[in-house]
Amino acid sequence: MIAKSMEPFLEGGSAIRAMFEEGKKMAKVYGVDNVYDFSVGNPGLNPPQEVYDAIDYINHNMDPHHVYGYPSNAGYETTRQAVADDLNERFGDNFDMENIIMTAGAGYAINIIMKCLFDPGDKLVVFAPYFVEYANWARNFGADTIAVPANESNGFEPDAEALRKVLEPSVKAIIINNPNNPTGAIYSRESLEAVAEVLREAEIKFGHPIYIISDEPYRELVYVEKKVEFLPDIYPNTLIAYSWSKSLSMPGVRIGYVAVPRKADGSEELSEALIVAGRVLGANNASTIAELIVERCIKARADIGYYERNAKDLYDIVSGAGFECIVPQGAFYLWFKSPVEDERELVKAAKEERILIVPGRSFSGPGWVRASFCIAHTTIMNSEDSFKKLGERYFK
Amino acid sequence: MIAKSMEPFLEGGSAIRAMFEEGKKMAKVYGVDNVYDFSVGNPGLNPPQEVYDAIDYINHNMDPHHVYGYPSNAGYETTRQAVADDLNERFGDNFDMENIIMTAGAGYAINIIMKCLFDPGDKLVVFAPYFVEYANWARNFGADTIAVPANESNGFEPDAEALRKVLEPSVKAIIINNPNNPTGAIYSRESLEAVAEVLREAEIKFGHPIYIISDEPYRELVYVEKKVEFLPDIYPNTLIAYSWSKSLSMPGVRIGYVAVPRKADGSEELSEALIVAGRVLGANNASTIAELIVERCIKARADIGYYERNAKDLYDIVSGAGFECIVPQGAFYLWFKSPVEDERELVKAAKEERILIVPGRSFSGPGWVRASFCIAHTTIMNSEDSFKKLGERYFK
Repeated sequence: MIAKSMEPFLEGGSAIRAMFEEGKKMAKVYGVDNVYDFSVGNPGLNPPQEVYDAIDYINHNMDPHHVYGYPSNAGYETTRQAVADDLNERFGDNFDMENIIMTAGAGYAINIIMKCLFDPGDKLVVFAPYFVEYANWARNFGADTIAVPANESNGFEPDAEALRKVLEPSVKAIIINNPNNPTGAIYSRESLEAVAEVLREAEIKFGHPIYIISDEPYRELVYVEKKVEFLPDIYPNTLIAYSWSKSLSMPGVRIGYVAVPRKADGSEELSEALIVAGRVLGANNASTIAELIVERCIKARADIGYYERNAKDLYDIVSGAGFECIVPQGAFYLWFKSPVEDERELVKAAKEERILIVPGRSFSGPGWVRASFCIAHTTIMNSEDSFKKLGERYFK
Repeated sequence: MIAKSMEPFLEGGSAIRAMFEEGKKMAKVYGVDNVYDFSVGNPGLNPPQEVYDAIDYINHNMDPHHVYGYPSNAGYETTRQAVADDLNERFGDNFDMENIIMTAGAGYAINIIMKCLFDPGDKLVVFAPYFVEYANWARNFGADTIAVPANESNGFEPDAEALRKVLEPSVKAIIINNPNNPTGAIYSRESLEAVAEVLREAEIKFGHPIYIISDEPYRELVYVEKKVEFLPDIYPNTLIAYSWSKSLSMPGVRIGYVAVPRKADGSEELSEALIVAGRVLGANNASTIAELIVERCIKARADIGYYERNAKDLYDIVSGAGFECIVPQGAFYLWFKSPVEDERELVKAAKEERILIVPGRSFSGPGWVRASFCIAHTTIMNSEDSFKKLGERYFK
């Protein structure tokens, strides 16, 4: 009785989500302190005080008709204006309120973008390794996903020449996720400019815009002296999908936005269409309470230093156990190489040591694994013996 | 640059939403007290005290990791169990936690149901007049909508014999919205049993289940001595879509659920598939704060008596002005007949009296109009003169 079109979603499942559920089960069996769950990883970090204060203010000082009634589908004007002002101040852009559409997180943001861009048969391009849901979301609109092969030799930077080879007329968008899940890389300006150049050529050749969907939930999570480039400066046809899940450490709340640069092709029509898409995909509007929280917390940040310490300590533990790791520059993932070709064997062995990590093939990055370090620092420190034992299986 | 498949959504727009935006503009021009906006209508009713208390409790007494982290995609186990227990207690059913999937409102609930049921080319059946988004949502999954003609002679009850005529093998689901938007009708057991009988015959004839999607956001809004039937008792293949937007008067917050009866065909597989659909359609999970609010407010209700007074007073005003009205039994809509064939003329004339109402053709119910009476009671009382003047245009 279930639709045939649901089959690929059901078969694919989400290995990450499965791990998350597995981790909860293992925690019940072994005790939560004896399982080192680096799979999804719920943030070990609390939201900043401003979030709690905002909720008190909303609950006790604001007009309930405003808080609980329907906002416009795109969100409260004040919230959209606050987002536009903040982007303009930080990045020197000229967003208006009209260019900002509030959404139930970055995932919903990307879905409404895709709803507006993709007809069945169109294609999305991503750079491997990549967050697997991108392909699921494209499939929601009948679009297939082409993965540009990973370039290990340059630290998994996007490879413009490899991109050129896969571009074809049916490609309507590519996704750039910077800082990157799962590699922890922050992309260099050179790589991004090369990508932009290839896209511009393709736009002319194929006679239609090719948008970059810039998935930026990790924008503020940076651990090295490296700038996270603001993509609309490099490539105007960039649609930003943002989420406060990481910067305010509240992924359960589901709040984000789409920002459409005024200089993007068809900026106005796109903004209008995105608002309609936000409504017709069923969520209607982002939760009002969540909108009012972020409006009041537009400058607030969770304690990012917490992740910086986690990044360093997990890197030391895992590389100390003998594994070849990419140094995390941003986001909250450690990407390290499996000493055996099929990394699922490493994932299985790790589970025997009560370590949960995600196989790279879940990101089209076979031969590697991902460990999320957004979790409690004690979990990371307590995992050292288990990682050592895991390393000894391969390196002694 | 916008996908061709977006065109019908953009063209169709939402007349109701357009009215809502128009109403906000008119309020700016004439003053909010001089515009009688019966279009979407943001509830004039505040949430019950329990909602504010729940937010305080969540904000000050609960573990932030629990409140702000990711729940399972289907929602918190405690919330799902609370919903299951409440349904079992009220309706004598035997839902388990596993049969409840929390969603960002009833609209998202219906979308994940459709994602699981519809392949392109499948069909949805609705009873006219009906909430226009149903057809948009079906179109998201490539399914067309067949409207069973309205039966004015029986007060817009669903017409089983007319249903029989439109059923065909590609019909995978029908929607029943009871109490009804836009007519305010509460369906009789006889009508619903007749519908169930026709569906059972069709299931056997076509060899596959035909589910009823029971859209129940108005379940608790009842103004007459008439039972709102619990559809799974009449037809086991019923999937319930619920929202707390009306019963807790917080539509902006977006929280609802899907309930899958254990006795429905493929109950387990469907529940599993719905959870996957909830994730892949992009919202990932219902907002945690919203889930925790409704869990703590499972027995709470906004002051429904408020709507009962509105229903009575608006009926008196509009029928007193000469219009032929259906007596509202539930929901919060007054459905009344246009004295001119093309009801858009009436809508236009009403706007000149600063009354905003929605043309029936937005619900495939031409010749009628809908006035939402969820708004402030004073707005209703103050509209009397304008309705009188409107009536005098036709009836004097």
